Amino acid sequence: MTSDLLATISTPADVKRLTAAQLEDLCAEIRAALLEFGKRHGGHIGSNLGLVEACVALHRVFDSPADAIVFDVSHQSYAHKMLTGRAEAFRNAALFGTVTGFTNPDESEHDRFVLGHTGTSVSLACGLAKQRDMDDSSAIGNVVAVIGDGALSSAVAFEGLNNAAEQGGNMIIVFNDNEMSIAENHGGMYATLARMRESNGESEPNLFHAFGLDYMYVPDGNDVHALVDAFESVRDIDHPIVVHIHTTKGLGMDTDPEDVAHGYREGRCEANHWQDPIVQASSTSPIPSSEGVGEAQPGREESPHPADPSQGARKFYGQLAMAELEQRFAGEPGLVVVSPATPGSNGITREFRERAGKHYVDTGITEEHAVAFASGIAQAGGRPVVATSATFFQRAYDEIQQELSLNGNPVTLLSFGGGLSDADNTHSGAYDIGFFGNIPNLTCLAPTNRRMFLKMLDWSTSLTNTSPVVIRVPGQTILDAEIAGVDDPAGVVAAAVDARVADRSHPFDRYVVKHHGSRVAIIGLGDAAILAQRVADALAAGNDGRQCSLGAVLSDESFDRNLGAGATERRAFAGGHSPREAGEPIEASVIDPLQFSTIDEATLRTLPASHDVVVTIEDGQLEGGWGEKITAFYANCMPEAGVKTLNFGARKEFTDRVNLASLLDRYGMTVADIVADIRAVL
Amino acid sequence: MTSDLLATISTPADVKRLTAAQLEDLCAEIRAALLEFGKRHGGHIGSNLGLVEACVALHRVFDSPADAIVFDVSHQSYAHKMLTGRAEAFRNAALFGTVTGFTNPDESEHDRFVLGHTGTSVSLACGLAKQRDMDDSSAIGNVVAVIGDGALSSAVAFEGLNNAAEQGGNMIIVFNDNEMSIAENHGGMYATLARMRESNGESEPNLFHAFGLDYMYVPDGNDVHALVDAFESVRDIDHPIVVHIHTTKGLGMDTDPEDVAHGYREGRCEANHWQDPIVQASSTSPIPSSEGVGEAQPGREESPHPADPSQGARKFYGQLAMAELEQRFAGEPGLVVVSPATPGSNGITREFRERAGKHYVDTGITEEHAVAFASGIAQAGGRPVVATSATFFQRAYDEIQQELSLNGNPVTLLSFGGGLSDADNTHSGAYDIGFFGNIPNLTCLAPTNRRMFLKMLDWSTSLTNTSPVVIRVPGQTILDAEIAGVDDPAGVVAAAVDARVADRSHPFDRYVVKHHGSRVAIIGLGDAAILAQRVADALAAGNDGRQCSLGAVLSDESFDRNLGAGATERRAFAGGHSPREAGEPIEASVIDPLQFSTIDEATLRTLPASHDVVVTIEDGQLEGGWGEKITAFYANCMPEAGVKTLNFGARKEFTDRVNLASLLDRYGMTVADIVADIRAVL
Repeated sequence: MTSDLLATISTPADVKRLTAAQLEDLCAEIRAALLEFGKRHGGHIGSNLGLVEACVALHRVFDSPADAIVFDVSHQSYAHKMLTGRAEAFRNAALFGTVTGFTNPDESEHDRFVLGHTGTSVSLACGLAKQRDMDDSSAIGNVVAVIGDGALSSAVAFEGLNNAAEQGGNMIIVFNDNEMSIAENHGGMYATLARMRESNGESEPNLFHAFGLDYMYVPDGNDVHALVDAFESVRDIDHPIVVHIHTTKGLGMDTDPEDVAHGYREGRCEANHWQDPIVQASSTSPIPSSEGVGEAQPGREESPHPADPSQGARKFYGQLAMAELEQRFAGEPGLVVVSPATPGSNGITREFRERAGKHYVDTGITEEHAVAFASGIAQAGGRPVVATSATFFQRAYDEIQQELSLNGNPVTLLSFGGGLSDADNTHSGAYDIGFFGNIPNLTCLAPTNRRMFLKMLDWSTSLTNTSPVVIRVPGQTILDAEIAGVDDPAGVVAAAVDARVADRSHPFDRYVVKHHGSRVAIIGLGDAAILAQRVADALAAGNDGRQCSLGAVLSDESFDRNLGAGATERRAFAGGHSPREAGEPIEASVIDPLQFSTIDEATLRTLPASHDVVVTIEDGQLEGGWGEKITAFYANCMPEAGVKTLNFGARKEFTDRVNLASLLDRYGMTVADIVADIRAVL
Repeated sequence: MTSDLLATISTPADVKRLTAAQLEDLCAEIRAALLEFGKRHGGHIGSNLGLVEACVALHRVFDSPADAIVFDVSHQSYAHKMLTGRAEAFRNAALFGTVTGFTNPDESEHDRFVLGHTGTSVSLACGLAKQRDMDDSSAIGNVVAVIGDGALSSAVAFEGLNNAAEQGGNMIIVFNDNEMSIAENHGGMYATLARMRESNGESEPNLFHAFGLDYMYVPDGNDVHALVDAFESVRDIDHPIVVHIHTTKGLGMDTDPEDVAHGYREGRCEANHWQDPIVQASSTSPIPSSEGVGEAQPGREESPHPADPSQGARKFYGQLAMAELEQRFAGEPGLVVVSPATPGSNGITREFRERAGKHYVDTGITEEHAVAFASGIAQAGGRPVVATSATFFQRAYDEIQQELSLNGNPVTLLSFGGGLSDADNTHSGAYDIGFFGNIPNLTCLAPTNRRMFLKMLDWSTSLTNTSPVVIRVPGQTILDAEIAGVDDPAGVVAAAVDARVADRSHPFDRYVVKHHGSRVAIIGLGDAAILAQRVADALAAGNDGRQCSLGAVLSDESFDRNLGAGATERRAFAGGHSPREAGEPIEASVIDPLQFSTIDEATLRTLPASHDVVVTIEDGQLEGGWGEKITAFYANCMPEAGVKTLNFGARKEFTDRVNLASLLDRYGMTVADIVADIRAVL
């Protein structure tokens, strides 16, 4: 391998021009590039290393985009991207991050969908094939779904498999069997798959035969020639077939001394799933942390400190929670942590899992099962905790509403990653307040520091609590504030709640007034509590708050750069408020609502007597969210009071890797904007 | 069979006291009672007839409630209810309707969950078993899940099966294989199940073996002795096992001349699934129509009139829609109707399905697959329509957000049964506005008569439309208004939209002012448009509107009876508005918003100039819904205008078979209440 074959590949047609021998060289180049990309940039390197040969073989045999290839979850599409005109984004550090970690039609005609959640590729492929078979003028040829890396155990994947056989017609389902899910494979079918591998695909029961599907086994899924032969044999097939390829996740890492030193290749699949960069490329920002949402990030998990804040908020608060629960395991048999995969990223370390024993259950990538399962545990008297990302809880909406909330069973949902962030568009946490907050009978808690977080968890998992609870795990803004000591310096919130725990069955249903002021009351939910305090500080100081934002102080330069369009836009949206200006000092009231499931009418009723404006700030979508309910309360229930309300939060939109400061500015959620808007209505 | 054995059964212990021979008599009595109940009251008679012997055998062998029995969907639990102290509710016409059609812990300790959606029983059973195995003091013995009647093809059911084997420990999964789903079974696994039946359970691939589960086959699932033997053999088993019982749906109907005459027993499974009463029991109201949500109701489907309003709104508008689409099938290959089961109840008749051919796909009970499948069709250029109940679309929340809306594919979701009704708590349509309306990039249309409905469908399925759309199929309130000719008598809405279709890419994004008045503007969304008009009429007449409600004029008696508590409650909630009184005539503006996905800022900005109060009325939960967004708009974007807003809609709560008039009164949604509230703030 001396020539630079990748430089000659700009479309799949170029793959077809290579000699058979060159295919191996191409695979080697891609693998080397992925290894280097992983070290410098990070990403889902392990599964992509395993799928290098399959991607080359797919583009050798099939004619994308006419032949449609759908990558499930699409986190395994790096080699595909490199073969479809995007290689430099993985090879040139200056271009790292210019393509997403998932397929994206905006990038290439070879990507038909934006996907980041698990299990839908077969259903999407059924749709493409259906349209092809309905429309004689359709340009679509073969339809290929690529699924695996744990995705097969996801609910909708089974629905897809079950419908594929019935639909009939050309469809090729490539099942990438790397013997791994994110942590490990879970479920009875994995023993069946192991027997199928051991028997060279001959054994029964064959899971795919059981769904009425034709089947082929490729034992060496990293042999590009074997894969080319297999795909050739099924190209233009007239019925659905599963091509079961056995690949090695992380293949190539073990030959790289730096990888070995970094511990990437240690036979643990979880450590192979998501990779942080070793060497930070100087010319680019690291891959957004959102891509790793719900994914294990190796090298950090084995921290000797059970809850080291430098790991970031997700792992820090997750580890804190697990440590608290672990102390109670011996005496509370029904205290069970349920994780529908991706434990590592939520601070559920391997050591914890081993120590927890039967108090920990990894159900695989099965959010629906996890919620219903927990509801069963709770109905039988236990106090289970289901831990996953806000974006993944979406998959169990119906079970959260029906099996959990309608049935009123005391399960605790620990929701990680809620709120605004630089996440990609498939993993955004901007929708969680509305998602959870409008379900009847579900208590939704939003702690504003670790002390409140653990207090809420302690209560929700106690026998005192008899109904379902979701706890929005604090984000980085809270963690930064805690480190800076500005979260609740006087301990007012904790003291107020402590007093209530003693004499109330629900200690979190009433808001806490952290500071009693007048004219303006600012209520900041969860992570937005920090911004609420900063707005109050700016009002009290009589300045315009230009140097503050939700997460941290912005540089003047970035502030000014970001401000322009956003502020103007917000002005227009907000009806032409006057531009921000300094003014007389205002001693505002600051309120921590603690929760977003009910309106604390009693507290709200007291405000108009001494306040002209009530401001709400939330770290998520306004529409359907929380703050507008407070506005509606005053409009409907106290119309005579004439109190003005202002709601700050995110627009109803999808965003894709927009940095947080830009988002906050876009939504008018800087201290300066909020101060200006408040002064404009006073 | 002469004695009345059922009268001697008040608990499962009584089943155990019978002789073996008496078990057959008991089954015969239950079957006779179910047949009579079905004729007089209606219900899921077919599947329950098939499960009579299994329920008797379960209670003969197992010791409920210590042994926990979880019925999937729980629509097959009638015989179980009759054996656990609730037989009279099925035998005494005066007591019909006093128990629900689903399991309910409020009714009996033998019911552990309220369930009405499909596929979660195995996961719930895993939870019960987990808690039992964690807690030495648990009273739970055997854990039994009863699943079948089409439920096995549901996504979460597979997740449950896959996790059951891994969990281990005692669990008995009774698979009721009646060879049927609601319409018919769909999917590749049904051929596998057929081979398993034909081979007396010996064939491979065995679907359950593929999931790592032990397995037993009972060929005659209506032989109570065979079932008792089978259950005895697995009682206290130390690992999960599937007991596959082959039953006959509707068994007993063919021996009943009246049934035969009514066409219940015609070898068509769909006609057996849900049964309307033949003879209306005089002493009780019919079983709420909500129980049949999404279920086929035989005897009406074969109407010679393609869209007969007497069938009710669901079928009427569904048939209208299908008739419109059908005309276009020949010329539009990508126009495909996708039904995740339950087609009959949505007016998708068997005749239509047969004529539609490949333009109709029943995917089985698989909402997630159906939405992703449709997204695939649309991505490939088609214009699919997915038709099901609002309550069932909940199951595909993540696919609607990710595969559909994030990807922006032009699928039309036809959502039936949205809005307030007397539905049971598992099938309520009260949450659909918030469910759909807060998803970015999803256009949400709420037609207020058939003309608008078909216009919207025509647009959403045309090539002009390039993004996903949900259409809230009009409900009975709209149909009644259409029949009475009061929906849009002057044709103002239709004319306005007609004008826009010609020159706008999105003809439904702007509200239509149906009547220009002053002081008060009333915006009624979808079905609530009728109530909005009636409020305007009452204001114009200067009366207090006491005789009007959303659906129909109530009798004075029922109005007064219902009014008391509800009105008082609303008063308190609404902050002590003055009691209703007649007043000066007010010529209010009446506005049809057409949609609930965006705020029509331009129209809203014009209102304050000539209106003091803007009123919103919606047919669903206020929190997270639509009207409060308009309140928030005025508060945030026109604070200087000082316009007052009032929002009418439902509370955030679960309701169970509360009649619509009572609900409307509870929520202050009568003409009288709304008029009074408006006059109070003027």
